[in-house]
Amino acid sequence: RIMPEETTSRPHIVTCTAPVNIAVVKYWGKRDEDLILPISSSLSVTLHQDQLKTTTTVAISTSFKVDRMWLNGKEEDITHPRLQSCLREIRRLARKRRNDGEPDSTESTGLSHKVHICSVNNFPTAAGLASSAAGFACLVYSLAQAFGVEGDLSGIARQGSGSACRSMYGGFVQWIMGNRDDGKDSIAQQVEPESHWPELRILVLVASAKRKPIGSTSGMQTSVQTSVLLKHRAESVVPHRMDKMIKAVQKRDFAAFAEITMKDSNQFHATCLDTYPPIFYLNSVSQQIIHLVHRYNGHYRESRVAYSFDAGPNAVIFTLQQHVPEFVRVVQHFFPPDTNGEDFIKGLPVKGAAISEELKEAIGLEPTPNGINYIISTKAGPGPCIIEDSSQHLLSPDGFPKKVTGSNPS
Amino acid sequence: RIMPEETTSRPHIVTCTAPVNIAVVKYWGKRDEDLILPISSSLSVTLHQDQLKTTTTVAISTSFKVDRMWLNGKEEDITHPRLQSCLREIRRLARKRRNDGEPDSTESTGLSHKVHICSVNNFPTAAGLASSAAGFACLVYSLAQAFGVEGDLSGIARQGSGSACRSMYGGFVQWIMGNRDDGKDSIAQQVEPESHWPELRILVLVASAKRKPIGSTSGMQTSVQTSVLLKHRAESVVPHRMDKMIKAVQKRDFAAFAEITMKDSNQFHATCLDTYPPIFYLNSVSQQIIHLVHRYNGHYRESRVAYSFDAGPNAVIFTLQQHVPEFVRVVQHFFPPDTNGEDFIKGLPVKGAAISEELKEAIGLEPTPNGINYIISTKAGPGPCIIEDSSQHLLSPDGFPKKVTGSNPS
Repeated sequence: RIMPEETTSRPHIVTCTAPVNIAVVKYWGKRDEDLILPISSSLSVTLHQDQLKTTTTVAISTSFKVDRMWLNGKEEDITHPRLQSCLREIRRLARKRRNDGEPDSTESTGLSHKVHICSVNNFPTAAGLASSAAGFACLVYSLAQAFGVEGDLSGIARQGSGSACRSMYGGFVQWIMGNRDDGKDSIAQQVEPESHWPELRILVLVASAKRKPIGSTSGMQTSVQTSVLLKHRAESVVPHRMDKMIKAVQKRDFAAFAEITMKDSNQFHATCLDTYPPIFYLNSVSQQIIHLVHRYNGHYRESRVAYSFDAGPNAVIFTLQQHVPEFVRVVQHFFPPDTNGEDFIKGLPVKGAAISEELKEAIGLEPTPNGINYIISTKAGPGPCIIEDSSQHLLSPDGFPKKVTGSNPS
Repeated sequence: RIMPEETTSRPHIVTCTAPVNIAVVKYWGKRDEDLILPISSSLSVTLHQDQLKTTTTVAISTSFKVDRMWLNGKEEDITHPRLQSCLREIRRLARKRRNDGEPDSTESTGLSHKVHICSVNNFPTAAGLASSAAGFACLVYSLAQAFGVEGDLSGIARQGSGSACRSMYGGFVQWIMGNRDDGKDSIAQQVEPESHWPELRILVLVASAKRKPIGSTSGMQTSVQTSVLLKHRAESVVPHRMDKMIKAVQKRDFAAFAEITMKDSNQFHATCLDTYPPIFYLNSVSQQIIHLVHRYNGHYRESRVAYSFDAGPNAVIFTLQQHVPEFVRVVQHFFPPDTNGEDFIKGLPVKGAAISEELKEAIGLEPTPNGINYIISTKAGPGPCIIEDSSQHLLSPDGFPKKVTGSNPS
């Protein structure tokens, strides 16, 4: 039990949530490691926080001696350079705001105030979902609320984790690479809000990975250094693909959206294979899911389903609402789970469906029992939110964690 | 039992052998499907025929009514366009030779003569080794002998199977892509003979493939149509890589040879993944072999071993003679065969060797029993050869197969 320090005033406390996002035009490769500036633009779909979110509480007080942070119940080293970048940039904006003579919106924007940060994910770390985007987006959003900072914060979130900038907005979001050396023009922008395409559904197929793959930070460094195909992709393929993807989203053209999504996922993994030594994120289950999707679409002679794979084993499936029940049934057929199917599907409810023998034959894969652990059924959702209900704070009124478990939930 | 037809004269019979070759700068993609003209140059090592070869007997006679062909004991359709291309081109050269007034070198260059062709491989089809290169090289070489045609024949072999042109020479061979529309400058040339680098050794790790992968002909068509990375590779990467590879071979610089070989294999498979729908030739065993090689080299802080994968599951390993015993032992440790090891290694004898615990730990893979069926130990070898011993003919003096088994020898 950590005891509260001597306090001179009650801490100012805010709690916010932020979403995970899945890139459909992938980000891979930095042109500046410190500022986290990418070699190409990217575009993502923000996932709904009802299924996947990070919650962060920030407390600021003159009584705190040092900045501290607790992540999933465990105290983390706050001196990590990327955490420090976010803290420094938020304080710089707060100072700028004060120097510009704007009235303080809260009583707590004192720049000498130290912060306590407490953050949890509502999904297990073991799911292998990249939590750094939601985590840094939530951190920056919460800090900004606490210090009374407004305006676009994606450029600060970017300095925590590149893809975090895209989690600062809901719906369909592009990260414009920018050209400036100081990175001021490398920011995220909403292309369309989540309400724009209500039929779009997202299924995260959580794979049972045996080995931990190489991390994205060091992976993309090696790719930038060694892959000539990545350089060509960044310079000559992505700009055109961004234009096409934005148009597909704006027109809600699922066939175009699906094709670019799959091609871009494949090309990202191709550049990983062109890296030296090569990086493999796709395993045999991933390959089977890719075959399954192409044969499923081939059977119906239209792109009803698209896959996307990040720097890990999970498949993210995009489809339209009306195709979800059948496709989920197909996945369940070819990756039969040990469970009776109740626990297999999490998130948005999925209706039961039958699948025809013709479809099974058209797909024609050998079933792989337990190849997929479970499915998270979700959709596009909003950007970061403020939680007004103070009972939801992760920090007590004294500014210390309400409960310290010492290990990850899950 | 096929009975000989009525004969008016004894057939003129020749028997030749031709080698398999393994590309270290890969050929993938045609700019002309009929003439088989590639979108980039390539470079290969010709494997020794003591381990892997095709043997072909050609008989020509005025008494034969039609051209016929037997492949591994089974009669094949001679009207296949690529077979017809080779036959037509050899007859054209024979006619040209006669019209140029050169004396016939044999009594049998009559252009009205029909041919009987009989061909066998000394390796099982099930080994998954691309037999078309050796097969077409042997066919063209044997036909040329029978019809008394001389000079470079790689341009004709190319029209049977692209990579067959490289099997027309021994040692280290480049296929120069050429620029002409008629393909006359798209030919193979020997870079160095097999005697140039006697320490070089080649291990074919024959994998146990479950599914037959997509064929190279249709695979490369789809890649040319859909992969933007393949276009970039052909135009901007391969020319430079060819120069570097030729220099590495000339200088017997194994480290450079190994690095280009591995990078080029990876880039070829990257373009397969960038193909839409994507093509996978590397399975989980391939991925493990790639990891194993990089960790093996990493342990010794030098490139002692290189891998190369074609459009199939087999790994081809290049190394120097002194490293063969240990590396084979490493492969046997991480891919333990059911057999006691006697049958595991075929071809050139491999001495026993011990491996250290440090090395095993440095590689640190989970062993995969029976991931590799067996190893063929071989080296660089000569180009096609004439077999003078008439007892080796696959056709009887009457021009029909000595024995028709009706199935592959396997």
